[in-house]
Amino acid sequence: MRRPALSKGFAAVNSLRPPTLADVAAHAGVSATTVSRVLNNRGYLSDAVKTRVHEAMEALDYRPNEVARALHGRSTQTVGVIVPSVALPFFGELSKAIEEALTVHGYRILLCNSMGRPQRERDYIDLLRSQRVDGLITGGHNDSLVDYERLRMPVVSIDRDLSPAITNVRSDNFAGGVLATEHLLEGGARRPLLLTSRSGPHNLREAGYLSVMKEQGLFPHVITVDFHLPDVEKDREIFAALEAVRGEHDGVFATDDLSAATALEWARQAGLRLPEEWHVVGFDGTAAVRRALPGLSTIQQPIDDLGAAAVRALLPQMEYMAAVSAAGPGTAAAKRLPTPPQGGVVELPVTLLQGRSS
Amino acid sequence: MRRPALSKGFAAVNSLRPPTLADVAAHAGVSATTVSRVLNNRGYLSDAVKTRVHEAMEALDYRPNEVARALHGRSTQTVGVIVPSVALPFFGELSKAIEEALTVHGYRILLCNSMGRPQRERDYIDLLRSQRVDGLITGGHNDSLVDYERLRMPVVSIDRDLSPAITNVRSDNFAGGVLATEHLLEGGARRPLLLTSRSGPHNLREAGYLSVMKEQGLFPHVITVDFHLPDVEKDREIFAALEAVRGEHDGVFATDDLSAATALEWARQAGLRLPEEWHVVGFDGTAAVRRALPGLSTIQQPIDDLGAAAVRALLPQMEYMAAVSAAGPGTAAAKRLPTPPQGGVVELPVTLLQGRSS
Repeated sequence: MRRPALSKGFAAVNSLRPPTLADVAAHAGVSATTVSRVLNNRGYLSDAVKTRVHEAMEALDYRPNEVARALHGRSTQTVGVIVPSVALPFFGELSKAIEEALTVHGYRILLCNSMGRPQRERDYIDLLRSQRVDGLITGGHNDSLVDYERLRMPVVSIDRDLSPAITNVRSDNFAGGVLATEHLLEGGARRPLLLTSRSGPHNLREAGYLSVMKEQGLFPHVITVDFHLPDVEKDREIFAALEAVRGEHDGVFATDDLSAATALEWARQAGLRLPEEWHVVGFDGTAAVRRALPGLSTIQQPIDDLGAAAVRALLPQMEYMAAVSAAGPGTAAAKRLPTPPQGGVVELPVTLLQGRSS
Repeated sequence: MRRPALSKGFAAVNSLRPPTLADVAAHAGVSATTVSRVLNNRGYLSDAVKTRVHEAMEALDYRPNEVARALHGRSTQTVGVIVPSVALPFFGELSKAIEEALTVHGYRILLCNSMGRPQRERDYIDLLRSQRVDGLITGGHNDSLVDYERLRMPVVSIDRDLSPAITNVRSDNFAGGVLATEHLLEGGARRPLLLTSRSGPHNLREAGYLSVMKEQGLFPHVITVDFHLPDVEKDREIFAALEAVRGEHDGVFATDDLSAATALEWARQAGLRLPEEWHVVGFDGTAAVRRALPGLSTIQQPIDDLGAAAVRALLPQMEYMAAVSAAGPGTAAAKRLPTPPQGGVVELPVTLLQGRSS
């Protein structure tokens, strides 16, 4: 690796700290109060003075200090978004969808990866609160140790059961599990197994699979491989688990596409013909995996709609908080403000995309 | 979609605004100045008072205001990261790698998607500056309209030529292009074409391809498909371009894995046998695409190392800025501080991963 060359460019920073409001005032030949008035559009100001101040701001590349605005309780027009990791295609694409939906309303996002670690999640929540974000959208797993209700700020979760008081926006996971399993059976599979990361009552995709299997009088079989394992180990575990029941099953419903891809690769190496001898249906249908593996059948989540629905649930909460802040918290006027809808579950429909794997 | 149920939880916010320093003082029965002293560990304080204040902070779930700290010029221990979109596996995984490398040094990241739109990039830079981030890591395309040098803050770019004064950390793209092309030729391809998003002197992967083709006396052929197109259109254009030269070529080096996947799918639909009749090598080697398509040969970028190298280049710049700030900008003491290394190119080696496609 070459060592970076020394450059004079950076040394200039020493004397050129970011310009302040006082610098703008000096440059324009007016008082700091006048600059502040121009910035906040307050009080009488001649057009000549306004022009001079704007020219000085332009010349110095001055940015009004959002930090100072936030201190005075004003909205930062910023929403924190916490996901396990944007390195996972579903959460990368979901983050993008949330950002697109918020941009329309003049909000920007600050995106944080919790990496599924409770301490990291708490640290980021502290950071986002201290940065005075107007709201929070949190996606991912339920193993949070954060008491989100106690945060006293607008929060919406995506596919995460945090509390009855926090709106949970998610795909219709149960219907997705039913759809995938029925599709496998219609395609000729008789003993499809489930490949998922965590088994239990919270796993609605699993519940959908179990319900169809029971209805059809078929014996279910569930393989769980921990979501948090490194990829190589995850693949090794999936291979070992499928190898262990080889010949006993004729297909798999995997509750995420990347595990479905591993089940496809196992079948290829095992010499099974698709879809005659081995049927695979995944879950998620992200753009990245659709491009990488267009032949994979999958239950597609409406990622853009999930982002938009989360934003729709969050906006009235943020508007309410802004109104409370403007009226003065605890005042009679604030108490008269109608509280926004909050809590409950918003479920969006999923779609079967048939490829060559089923 | 069900309408979220009304809940009483949120109404409590009205009276329960986030606790302030004054609330802590009232709860502990001390003055605000005393709380401030405890927070900043300044002046004489009895253990009893310290304990009372800490207990009050705990009881009220009080967070010291980072916004106020930033106003006083203190470090926010936060780095802004700008990428085109975390929905692209390479940038999703790169963001995660940067975050992991920064965490070791006590920094957190605020992640922003520019979506390849210059205005969005400018907006986010304004936001990050006003949030007083200590530094900036920016990745992606060169079509920036932002004058990064003028920002007067620590900046490192990843795979982006912004200015000779800004360190550019990247994979050895030229060597990658050479490696991919030589590998295609060794595998028996005689007329491999290049599939890339933008042709020109900045495209070092293309330069590597062209150099090997020239050396071997072979005629190069370059297909360009705009990176910013929606996926469906991108795939349609790739299909049309490959169809147009069908029979004239026997393989492709695609400068990203998802385009390589499309070239694979085209060959499958065209009935070409791999790797006898059609050889494919991609570029990136992200974890997501490795799992989705383990059979794809690719030139793997060292994503974790790229993140770590960018952080290694940024840290001394941030430490220098902190030292200047502590000494007082423009003072004699500040001027005596040694300036950190800056600018130049850091190139990291790439690896060929052979799959079944070549």
